[in-house]
Amino acid sequence: MSLLEATCARVREPDPAIAAETQRLLDAKTKPRKSLGRLEEIACRVAAARGMSVPPLPRKAIVVMAADHGVADEGVSAYPAEVTAQMLLNFVRGGAAINVLARQVDARVVVVDMGVRTDLGEIAGVVRKRIGAGTRNFLREPAMSRVDALTALESGIEIARSLAAEGVGLLGVGDMGIGNTTSSSALVAALTGSGAEEVTGRGTGIDGATLARKVDVVRRAVALHRDETRDVADTLASLGGFEIAGLAGVILGAAAERVPVVLDGFITGAAALVAARLAPAATDYMIASHRSVERGHRVALRALCLDPLLDLDLRLGEGTGAALAMGLVEAALRVLHEMATFASASVTDAGA
Amino acid sequence: MSLLEATCARVREPDPAIAAETQRLLDAKTKPRKSLGRLEEIACRVAAARGMSVPPLPRKAIVVMAADHGVADEGVSAYPAEVTAQMLLNFVRGGAAINVLARQVDARVVVVDMGVRTDLGEIAGVVRKRIGAGTRNFLREPAMSRVDALTALESGIEIARSLAAEGVGLLGVGDMGIGNTTSSSALVAALTGSGAEEVTGRGTGIDGATLARKVDVVRRAVALHRDETRDVADTLASLGGFEIAGLAGVILGAAAERVPVVLDGFITGAAALVAARLAPAATDYMIASHRSVERGHRVALRALCLDPLLDLDLRLGEGTGAALAMGLVEAALRVLHEMATFASASVTDAGA
Repeated sequence: MSLLEATCARVREPDPAIAAETQRLLDAKTKPRKSLGRLEEIACRVAAARGMSVPPLPRKAIVVMAADHGVADEGVSAYPAEVTAQMLLNFVRGGAAINVLARQVDARVVVVDMGVRTDLGEIAGVVRKRIGAGTRNFLREPAMSRVDALTALESGIEIARSLAAEGVGLLGVGDMGIGNTTSSSALVAALTGSGAEEVTGRGTGIDGATLARKVDVVRRAVALHRDETRDVADTLASLGGFEIAGLAGVILGAAAERVPVVLDGFITGAAALVAARLAPAATDYMIASHRSVERGHRVALRALCLDPLLDLDLRLGEGTGAALAMGLVEAALRVLHEMATFASASVTDAGA
Repeated sequence: MSLLEATCARVREPDPAIAAETQRLLDAKTKPRKSLGRLEEIACRVAAARGMSVPPLPRKAIVVMAADHGVADEGVSAYPAEVTAQMLLNFVRGGAAINVLARQVDARVVVVDMGVRTDLGEIAGVVRKRIGAGTRNFLREPAMSRVDALTALESGIEIARSLAAEGVGLLGVGDMGIGNTTSSSALVAALTGSGAEEVTGRGTGIDGATLARKVDVVRRAVALHRDETRDVADTLASLGGFEIAGLAGVILGAAAERVPVVLDGFITGAAALVAARLAPAATDYMIASHRSVERGHRVALRALCLDPLLDLDLRLGEGTGAALAMGLVEAALRVLHEMATFASASVTDAGA
């Protein structure tokens, strides 16, 4: 059995009795029942995922995977492909948005080169898992081989396993890759059967004419690879990106280790959809951080039955939404740990 | 000129040139333009309020005001009035939800007794600004005198001024008071002309029959005090609570000191509406934290033209939503302070 198969087999539905016990503990706290709304739901979700009714405040990490995309040659992005490598260096130096927001919530940023076009060589602070120098242009041929897709998935699984072994109890995921909204649109269209125009948006900020071209690219790519699409791994190989495949692996690896994963925006949503098609119970370990401006994100979240915590018109990626939502997840767990009960604080409990 | 009049006169519209300069600085950061969505908007709003394009990371405080309400005698709440005083003690001991969430964002909690029914005497950690032993039942008579309303407003102004003088640069507001959603519903109905059923909800969790009685109480109270309502202070005196009047004062005092105020849910929304009617430019200093389950909150936010940052089905009060949103406000300011620019990080700027 491959690492991927073994990992998927270990992704099990959490025990609902644990979430029920967590809710019972929350109901004893000095507040009207369920008056902390979605925070209480998140506390129960994390508890069930961890398999403990009062999980400790978790050590946090955000895995940011970067790669380039052959389809960027079709002129579907506002930024040139060189920006992927430039931003990888920005992550390492701590100057990107994700560095700032991760510092605020005390989350370690794990930067992974899954296949940036320019090989930057060994760089301190970058985990090197390069599958290649960017994917091929999927408007002409499969983005990568099936073997590459499986290798990328397993690279992600290994990273999640190693972080879990180091004691990380809450993972976030983020992406960087010029052209990766196009890949995500194609993947979400292929995996959900949605039309190209339903899942394709303006990415980092393209104009109307470029958007029309991008929709056309997505439509043609999905049609081109429809016949050869035998299973999820094939779809991923045909239309995916190295970082999307890697992030799907991180999500699967985390779920197998019972570590909840805070998703970010559209690209991690596409990765989550891949993960959920490989191991359906993985969705129970996912927390949707925010609803991206990118329209395909709604389609992905709907397919995953996830309701995001934030709706702040974010469209940056990198894990920025995940970092922001980690603060809310921590708040939910702190409530569970630190609040007084009606009994301990001598407050009359009307049971409402 | 009274302190209230002087304070209202000092609440001025912020200079839009400062927000524009802040946006220009954000546009130079390594991210597509405006891709951090509402975080960028909040950074600009705080900058304009503070009168500095890059305001320092603020020292934070959340003012939680507690008082009792004569209208609670009408059986409009799920909890008995004694809970107000019990929760005041819980705040002081640090066991309430607001203590937990404020600790997470490093905000000091300032607990104020504006008029809890049982006088608990001097308690370390409670600011004593008692106007009386709870308001009167406004279904029969005005909740308080006009003088009491003005005193409560000025007590709040004094607290905000003193916190600003101590260097607090970001204020939150929160409430505690059994019966105070009924008072807030009546105030919002009277100030906006909305029907009682549009602004009255289940508070801490009342059943359908109690909700029907509560709507009737609000409708009758608004009708009873309509004739005598000459100005905002009279409306506040007729239908308000001591803590709502005090919180309106905190908001006005903060706006006069150019300190932005993070609102909480429905009760602080009613207080904000009072403040805005007394000094319309005060709304420019408000940040709406969340959209409460309580339906009248939507009406208040619409009247204030404020769009909340969070929508987490919260209905607890105490400033809990404000504390959660303070984390987002801080994130917005950290982005402004800490992110690299395209130039400093050598990242190609496509200007998108």
